[in-house]
Parts: sequence; C-alpha cells; structure tokens
Amino acid sequence: MRDARNHPLRPPGTACPANHWKRGFFAGNRLHPLPCESLFPVGPRGAARLWPGEDNSFTTSNGLELFYILLVFLVVARLFGEVAVRLGQPVLVGELIAGIVLGLVAGNAPDRFPVLSGLEHNEVFSAIVELATFFLMLLAGLELRPNDLFKDLDRSAAVATGGMLVPLAIGIGLGWWILPESDLRFSQMMFLGVALAITAVPVAVKALMDVNALDSRVGRTIVASAVIDDILSLVLLAVFTAVLETGTTPGAMDFLRIGGSSLLFIGIAYLVGRYGLRWLGRQARKLRLEQLEFTFVLVSGLALAVLAELLGLHFILGAFAAGLFFRPETMSSKAYKSVLDKVEAVNTGFLAPIFFASIGMHLDLSAVVETPWIVVAILVAATIGKLIGAGVPARMRGASMRESAAIGIGMNARGAVELIIAGIALDAGLFLQPEPIPPVIANLFSAVVITAIVTTLTTGLLLKRFMAGSGSGEDT
Amino acid sequence: MRDARNHPLRPPGTACPANHWKRGFFAGNRLHPLPCESLFPVGPRGAARLWPGEDNSFTTSNGLELFYILLVFLVVARLFGEVAVRLGQPVLVGELIAGIVLGLVAGNAPDRFPVLSGLEHNEVFSAIVELATFFLMLLAGLELRPNDLFKDLDRSAAVATGGMLVPLAIGIGLGWWILPESDLRFSQMMFLGVALAITAVPVAVKALMDVNALDSRVGRTIVASAVIDDILSLVLLAVFTAVLETGTTPGAMDFLRIGGSSLLFIGIAYLVGRYGLRWLGRQARKLRLEQLEFTFVLVSGLALAVLAELLGLHFILGAFAAGLFFRPETMSSKAYKSVLDKVEAVNTGFLAPIFFASIGMHLDLSAVVETPWIVVAILVAATIGKLIGAGVPARMRGASMRESAAIGIGMNARGAVELIIAGIALDAGLFLQPEPIPPVIANLFSAVVITAIVTTLTTGLLLKRFMAGSGSGEDT
Repeated sequence: MRDARNHPLRPPGTACPANHWKRGFFAGNRLHPLPCESLFPVGPRGAARLWPGEDNSFTTSNGLELFYILLVFLVVARLFGEVAVRLGQPVLVGELIAGIVLGLVAGNAPDRFPVLSGLEHNEVFSAIVELATFFLMLLAGLELRPNDLFKDLDRSAAVATGGMLVPLAIGIGLGWWILPESDLRFSQMMFLGVALAITAVPVAVKALMDVNALDSRVGRTIVASAVIDDILSLVLLAVFTAVLETGTTPGAMDFLRIGGSSLLFIGIAYLVGRYGLRWLGRQARKLRLEQLEFTFVLVSGLALAVLAELLGLHFILGAFAAGLFFRPETMSSKAYKSVLDKVEAVNTGFLAPIFFASIGMHLDLSAVVETPWIVVAILVAATIGKLIGAGVPARMRGASMRESAAIGIGMNARGAVELIIAGIALDAGLFLQPEPIPPVIANLFSAVVITAIVTTLTTGLLLKRFMAGSGSGEDT
Repeated sequence: MRDARNHPLRPPGTACPANHWKRGFFAGNRLHPLPCESLFPVGPRGAARLWPGEDNSFTTSNGLELFYILLVFLVVARLFGEVAVRLGQPVLVGELIAGIVLGLVAGNAPDRFPVLSGLEHNEVFSAIVELATFFLMLLAGLELRPNDLFKDLDRSAAVATGGMLVPLAIGIGLGWWILPESDLRFSQMMFLGVALAITAVPVAVKALMDVNALDSRVGRTIVASAVIDDILSLVLLAVFTAVLETGTTPGAMDFLRIGGSSLLFIGIAYLVGRYGLRWLGRQARKLRLEQLEFTFVLVSGLALAVLAELLGLHFILGAFAAGLFFRPETMSSKAYKSVLDKVEAVNTGFLAPIFFASIGMHLDLSAVVETPWIVVAILVAATIGKLIGAGVPARMRGASMRESAAIGIGMNARGAVELIIAGIALDAGLFLQPEPIPPVIANLFSAVVITAIVTTLTTGLLLKRFMAGSGSGEDT
C-alpha cells in the first residue's frame, strides 16, 4: 500500500491533473488505472495554505497544517487558562473564551486565517477533538471509584430523570410560545426541548476537576446523573431524528433497541471491568513490555469505546467505564498512579485546552444582535429547567439547598453535545419554514449554539461558589 | 461555526442529498445556499463501515472508525512487540512485523476490512502517524545532550556525507545497469540513487532506543549523521523533483535556497534553544497552570516544527531541536524528568507501535514473486552502500571495526522517508516507460518499498549485535 501523505488533496474547484490516467496500481505487468477522484481526492479544507500567498508545495508532509493548528490552539487556550486561574476562575472558562476569541478572529478574517476558519470541515481536527474527549472521560473514570459513584444510584437516577424531563418540557413549552405556525413547528418544538434537555458529561467532569470537586459527594452525583443522562439522551435523539425524518415519533421497537443496547453495554462493561480487567491485569504483569500499564488502559478504553459505538451508544461511555474499572488492584498501586499521572498530563497539558477552545470557537453572535430576546428566553429556560429539574430531586433526596443548586448548575453544562444536536437539525433543514423565514427561526440555530457555550461557561463560573459548603470529602 | 462531526462524509459514488440546496448558513434573515460539495464532502475513505453489512449510521460521531483503527494497531503491534522482546529482538522489529501482517490480512480481504485496507487514503490516520513521528523525535531530543551530540561534528559530517553519496552513486550505477532505455531512464536512475541514499532519522533513533544505545558514542554519531542526512536529503529531493518535472537538474538558486533555509533554521533553533527556552522556562515557572512543563515542551516542539516546515525543511528537525534544548536547567530537574516520563509513555505505550506498524503495512510482495533478482540487487546495493559510505568514514575517524559496522547498520534504516520518495515517483508517472512496461520497471516501486521495510528490519535486528562492544557509556 502507498503512503497517504503522497496524496496531496486537490484544492476544491481545481481540475483533475491531466496525467491522472497514467497513475494506478501495478499488478502483474499491467497498470490498472484508477478514477481521478480516488487518486486526487478534493481537499475538504478551504485551502492547504496557512497564509494567503504562501507556497508550501515543496514540503513532503501535511504536518505543517496539523502542527500549526495544535500550536495556535494550545498556546492561546493555555494563556487564557492562566488568566482565568489568576482571576480565581476555573481553567475551562479561560479555554472556552480562548476558543471564542479564536473563532471571532478567524471568522472576521477568513482570508487571512484560511486553516482556522476552515476547521469545521477539517477531519483531522475533529479526530483530535474526539481523542481529547476520549482522554477526558478516561481520566474522569480513573479519578472516581465505581463503588462510590453508584452508591446513591436512586438519587442519581432521580436527578438524571428530572434534569432531563423538566427542561424538555420547558423547551417544548417555550417553542409552543415563540415559534410561528408551519409544517415544521412540531419538529422545531421538539428540537428546542431536546437541545435544552441534554447534559455534556465531559464538560461537567472538567468543571468539577477544575474546582477539585470531582470526587466529592456532589461531584459524584453530577457525574453519575450526567452519565445516565447521556444514555437517556440517546432515546431523545432517536425520537427527535424519527420526528425529523417521518414526522412521527419512533415505534416501540426503537425504544427497545436503545434500552437493550444500553443494558447490554452496562452488563458487558461491568463484567469486563469487575472481573476481566483484573484477570487481564494479572496476565499483563507477566509481559516484558515497557509502558505496559499505559497501553493497557488505552486498549481497555478503546475496546469499550468501540463496543459502545457498535451498540449505538456514545464512545465516551466506553472510555469512562475503562477508567472507572482500572483500580490500584487491577495491576498495582504503582501502575495506577503512573497511568493517572500520564493521562492527566495528556489531558491538562495537551488535549483538554484544545477541546474546550474548539467548543468556544463555534460561537456566532448573529442571534444576539438580531433577536436578543430569543437568546435570553432560551438561556433562561435552559438554566431554570436544569436548576429545577435536577436540583429539586437532589433536595428531596437529602442534599442541602446549596448542594442542590451546585447539582443543578453542574447538570446545566451542554457543551459539545448540544452543538451536535443543533447540527443535526440544521442538516435536516429544520429552520426553513415558514416562508418567508421569520427572525425567530432564522436565529434559532445561532441561539441554541450560544446556549451551549454560555451554559458551559456559567457551569464553570458558578460551580465553585456553590461547592464551597460541600467540601471534597465524604461529608453530608 | 458548525461542528465538523455534523458533516458525515458522503460515501464515494453516492449522489448529493436531494435537499442539499435547503442547507446553508444564515446571515441576516437570509439563507445563503452552499454548493453540495462543501456541505456533503465525499468521503476519501473506502467506506464508513467497519465490517460489511454493518450499519453505524445512528452514531453521532466518527469516533468509531478512529478508535477501531487505534485499537487494532495498538493491540497487534504491542503483542508482536512482546514476542520480539521474548525472542531477544528489539521491539520495533515486532511492531514492523505486526504492520506487515495487518497489511497482508487487510490487502487479501479488503471487503472484510474496508477501514484497514483504505488506510492509505485516510487523512486522520496520516495525522496520527505524523503525531507519532513528532513525539518520537521529541523524545530522542530529550534523551540526548546537545553538547555531546555535536562534539564529534567532523566525524558525523563525514559519516553523513559518505553515507549519502556512496549509496547515491551505487543506486545510480545499479539503475544504469538494470534499467532499459527510455525517455525516463535518467529520472529512474536518479530515483534509485535517491531512494538508496536517504536515512530515516526516527527509525534510527528508535532502533537505538530499543537496544539502550541512543546516548552511547556510536548512537550519538548515528543520530547526528542521520540529522545531517535529513537536511542533505532535501537537496537530493529538490534535484530529484526538478529532474522529474523538467528533465534537468535544478539551478544554483534552488540549492542556495535550501542551504539558506537550513542555516537559518539551525541558527534560529540554536538561539531559541540555547537562550530563548531557558528564559521562557524561567518566566513559565511563574505561571500557575498545572502540567505546565508538558505544555511547554509540546509548544516548543510545535513552534519549531512549524518553523522548519515554513522554511521548507521537515518538521522532525523542529521536534528534535525542541527536545534537545529542553534540559534540566531549562525549568528544573523535576520538570525535565516529568516531561521525559510522559513523552516516553505517549511514545512507547501509544504512538510508536502504531507508527512502526504503519510502515510495515505498506509491504507489497509482488516484486519478490515476479522479479526476485531485482529485489535482491536493490537490497544488497542499499546495504553495501550505507555500510561502506557511512562505515569507512567512521573507521577513518577513529571508530573501531565493530563500531563502524554498527554505524553503517544504523544509517541503513530507511523507513517512512523512502516510502515518501517512492510515492512521489509513482505520482509523477515514473514507472510508465518504456512501453510495453518491462517487469523491471513494473516492479521497481514494490522493490523500493520492500527495501524500505527490510532495511528498517535489519537495522533493528543487527544493531544490537554490533553495539555489544561499544557499551553505552563514554568509552572509545
């Protein structure tokens, strides 16, 4: 096979090289021609240049673009992170704002920053962001103990259910109130409900880490509820996509399929985690490879991530489960500490800043300018929905007022998951009716993206304040 | 901006979705339509499925494919690495063979392993391999001391020059002997010469690490010579591409440009490394961020990698320089040890096995079956060229017979660099004359790829044997 680096992507709009028919692969003594598309794929990015007028055609690799993106994101995100820390705020707030700034700069001068402004179509950057999410969930799992996490399962389940259903209802109600009549009105109402109902596990996790509260009782409740929400949100997503495609809600079989997949995954993850990993860990200690424990955790995480995706679930569940079940007893206390240290370095020092900056980069302020009241209404609905939906059940299950507020705030982070749902709606043409398109519909996508970013920001900003009373130990 | 994950790649050959015109971006109250290509880019990979018949359309991410590839490569490469260690061989030999096996399996059943057999067009996988190369060179730099590395600069320069010119001459001579008359004959001879003349720095580095000889006198000579060769090979590459495009050798200006760029890079890297990094390190210690030293080294490496690429050099020089100049004195002895440990984990436990397996995966045995004598001739010419070209100058500059052999063997690794050169030649249609294409031309590409892999393998297998006498200390 040939090296992919020898296939420079053809800039969009350019013709196929005249001699493309000469290329192909040799088998026997014959040259088998290949279609131009497969030999010279059109580049999905705007341009293979960093700056206009720059000619990088001589380089033998695409490394320039990859390293340029990583460099810019890492430097800007960490500098803003430092500013946030100095102002007494969590690191993720700074990283998010770094992304907002990068997005505004690139968006206002796409010609001067073609690589940055073309990131939405950059497959490699998406992969880096996915890898960042993977490491973040792996780290969250490593830092939590499975026994503690699911000790208060009834509380977490109540928080998760309330924290999903209440904002769903509020979102649908808000839609019923503000959206004009059209064929797509029902779908648009559903969209608002689903967009407000979800919680982004990685964001909640990082916000808790930033205030050193991941392994507190409140922190564990938030993480356990967010993980349950992640599974429930697949049900919502199935309903929503069915509504989009057919105009009707999905049948019982679809719900059964998602429920069955979730149970199957939880069952396998539990068996693998509880017994399989420990057995494998004992076997692995006989191997002579260096850095074995790091590979061991990565392979467990990758395997469970692939399993989750094959079952129709999200890969973050797999990464989280692998981290959760890799305990000091799995291999050794030393192996656990070594892995924790390294996964933390890859996260904190490398990938997490890039992940949060990539979320902030999606900000588009057009809705604020044109329909500020819609943005405010959606933001308020989103926050109140989570505060009540998650906070009240927590309060009813014994959390203090302050802790309940912290749980509501923690569950309010929407981050990347809401961006995905907004993207699905945009893809389906949900914002094209009625015609002519009224401002409220034209700005709905932008308003929901703003909600995703602002709720992530407020989770970061407010969580610390309300965690103060709960400590990080075993109290309450 | 929208999330790239919302843009599922359209499978090649399928039509644009009927409603594509409905999509677009909102600005003001108007929907601005975008061309289909930019909304639904055609996937460059063979298929978005892992196995035939599998429908993963429901997943909200492309994570499945990424994690599946990483999982397969990591598991197979590390298992073969373990076997290699048990047989007393270096890890990289096992990882390379793992890649050969993966390539044979995927190549023989492309329908059953569409993702693996389509890796040559997979941009994300290429990026992972580039990142692996980056970390490998960063680690090599960290493990070496700049003062020791360039202490014997005259010996390294002699080894580098001889190790490049002798195989170049032998390659051109071999071409003159075996290649039939045609318009492209001169270019084909040049190709053979260039392909045999290069040395892959990352492979040499890893082979030395595997036998714990990176920081021995022989190891330092090999690395320093390989780095010099990397710069010289740019000159060769410039000559070669000019011959391919215009049929003539490039003018004096081109040589001046490469020479100037190299000097400029070395100058900047030296100033930044010697004074800039130390100053920055002192400033950075005032920051309050966690995992600061890891970010610091990555940012230095990325910045110098981008600089190298902008100057027309290869990014590995930047990564290597950043590692080389990050010393215990740059921040603190603790910071240095911490960084070394983490970069080593990312290498040994994660990326390096994937990198070496990806090289092995390119093996295509058709030339061995059809024209075995050509494969043998090229292999022998390549090895003798490096043994004499690098070994004799080393012997003349005071190395023992055994050390000189080790230096020749170390310089014989060709790895990924030769694959890139072979790819450029294939892209340029170098193997299409004379017509009808004789077997020697039809199999030249495959033979050179085999040489790349076999010389990498033999470097790994033989280096240890010849390092025995030299120890890893300051002797000789």
